[in-house]
Amino acid sequence: MSRFWSPLVKQLTPYVAGEQARLPDLVKLNTNENPYGPAPEVLAAIAHANADDLRLYPDPAASALRRVIAAHHGVQADQIFVGNGSDEVLAHAFHALFQHGLPVLMPDVSYSFYPVYCRLYGIPHELVPLKADFCLDVQDYARPAGQVGGVVLANPNAPTGIALPLADIEALLRLHPDRVVLVDEAYVDFGGESAVSLIARHPNLLVVQTLSKSRGLAGLRVGYALGSVELIEGLARVKDSFNSYPLDRLAQAGAVASFGADAYFRQTCARVMQSRERLSAGLRELGFQVLPSAANFVFATHPGQDAGELAQRLRAQAILVRHFKLPRIDQFLRISVGTEAECGRLLGALNTITRSS
Amino acid sequence: MSRFWSPLVKQLTPYVAGEQARLPDLVKLNTNENPYGPAPEVLAAIAHANADDLRLYPDPAASALRRVIAAHHGVQADQIFVGNGSDEVLAHAFHALFQHGLPVLMPDVSYSFYPVYCRLYGIPHELVPLKADFCLDVQDYARPAGQVGGVVLANPNAPTGIALPLADIEALLRLHPDRVVLVDEAYVDFGGESAVSLIARHPNLLVVQTLSKSRGLAGLRVGYALGSVELIEGLARVKDSFNSYPLDRLAQAGAVASFGADAYFRQTCARVMQSRERLSAGLRELGFQVLPSAANFVFATHPGQDAGELAQRLRAQAILVRHFKLPRIDQFLRISVGTEAECGRLLGALNTITRSS
Repeated sequence: MSRFWSPLVKQLTPYVAGEQARLPDLVKLNTNENPYGPAPEVLAAIAHANADDLRLYPDPAASALRRVIAAHHGVQADQIFVGNGSDEVLAHAFHALFQHGLPVLMPDVSYSFYPVYCRLYGIPHELVPLKADFCLDVQDYARPAGQVGGVVLANPNAPTGIALPLADIEALLRLHPDRVVLVDEAYVDFGGESAVSLIARHPNLLVVQTLSKSRGLAGLRVGYALGSVELIEGLARVKDSFNSYPLDRLAQAGAVASFGADAYFRQTCARVMQSRERLSAGLRELGFQVLPSAANFVFATHPGQDAGELAQRLRAQAILVRHFKLPRIDQFLRISVGTEAECGRLLGALNTITRSS
Repeated sequence: MSRFWSPLVKQLTPYVAGEQARLPDLVKLNTNENPYGPAPEVLAAIAHANADDLRLYPDPAASALRRVIAAHHGVQADQIFVGNGSDEVLAHAFHALFQHGLPVLMPDVSYSFYPVYCRLYGIPHELVPLKADFCLDVQDYARPAGQVGGVVLANPNAPTGIALPLADIEALLRLHPDRVVLVDEAYVDFGGESAVSLIARHPNLLVVQTLSKSRGLAGLRVGYALGSVELIEGLARVKDSFNSYPLDRLAQAGAVASFGADAYFRQTCARVMQSRERLSAGLRELGFQVLPSAANFVFATHPGQDAGELAQRLRAQAILVRHFKLPRIDQFLRISVGTEAECGRLLGALNTITRSS
């Protein structure tokens, strides 16, 4: 604590990102990175941009990137907002669209950054409990008119991996037509159903996606939002009051190239989904309960093993998975889908651990 | 305007960045970019990082980069905060350190983003007029105790280019020992005197620098702050409640390499300073009044020419300079120091224009 801090700072409890460890022979399944990385075209585009005018500011509006994202999703470029990773996009969205002095509703088990954004911007929030099976019941989000500041959820949800059907998203949009419903689709390309098709009918829908997972570009920091022109304009007003140039020239060039490499994108997503199903089956064989995942990770619990201890014992073998010391989920592990070899090493280690204890 | 926006958004008047035009044979002297670009080592480091694990998240703490910046300035790594350009660093600093419900003092003529940050975070601000010659008198910042939220200024100032002596910075720090004095040194490497040496004695001093100007990396988006450990911790708490990974892997690698290329850095800064003196002399020969600049731009006015019209006529010849339609300075042009050839083309064009009118 410091007398120089704004009073707000003293109340913050920052988000803690998954460990970026440097261990020899590491199997890193703790931050949902893509084992296959970006398309070769991305590296070529970055190399080209690197040789070209890094001394000049980037395009502050990222026009070329917004055009290719819009084309990919079948919307207009003025319906696209881009940022320095989807975390920055989410932060601006909370600031621009949720600061109404009314509670923003969110699942009690979801991306734990959402309540952090609320505290950062002085936004009240209400955790709405998921059902016992971690599914979301839209009716739990019903409130009298004028008592809600917005709704945010991840679909597929993190860290559960469970996908919500589009009909439920649409029901949420109809429950709160005067407030923004933010659907964070960081993991949608691994089997979820995107809500982008609902944007034309629902001006209160903001969809957020990222290049970090399905496009293998966690290291490049590019995320984006799609929505009605008025929502995107609200985001742009906040962004242009914060940082004119959030995406550097290399990130813009690499991201544009990623959207040109569609076959690679679809093939690597399919491989991850195949590995996910094999990993889930292997974990079930070891006695784990595995939630149905539409993401590039699985969320699993073992009736005879403490999850925190399991994570520690895996770490001792240079295998990192994510364990959240949070209510309801402290007996679960979130395991990113790696290569087949990485999944095999994990299953082998878990086999030894669960048999020996 | 939209009913979905947070009320705050309706009150924002975003900063307007200088034009990033794409004209054939352009002489771009409008956004203070460095004509010489980054050191070759920077491009090599980026190429290396590009081939290495872009699929993985970057180091969220940017530890390697903070270490080299600390070593360069002779401070500790925990006295360094890095961000996505100094604009992001400034934004977090306003949020973390200036939100006290009291006016933040700033010069009436300075970086026009400062009042924009204040509006974004609901911080009152007071513009303190510079003297008629655009110099700053520290006594104008004296206020009774407990009536100031902080002080922010650029040194050298933008867009005037005028440098403030360190003794005046120290006087400011002593005027408000319980509030942060933020010194934005974006241009300090072109002849200003850095306040970093005062950090050890003044825990309320935050210095902000950037790689965009003197290190020729406007396209990479890296800025940083230096200060007491407690100030840096306040910034980190806000950053970790906003975006865990603001600097991508390529930006971190390139920035580290830039601090390794010290000879290149000093040589290119010296060339810019030499060109600035020749440019100033050339402008004076044409009848301009040129403020004494310690930056990589000059601020000049012509008694017989309308500045806005001059900027338009230069633009018609594919020469961009910056003209601000703002009180007190609407008859000035801010002209970035380009290569000798670029400065020559500018002077030639101005010679023709001023003689023909």
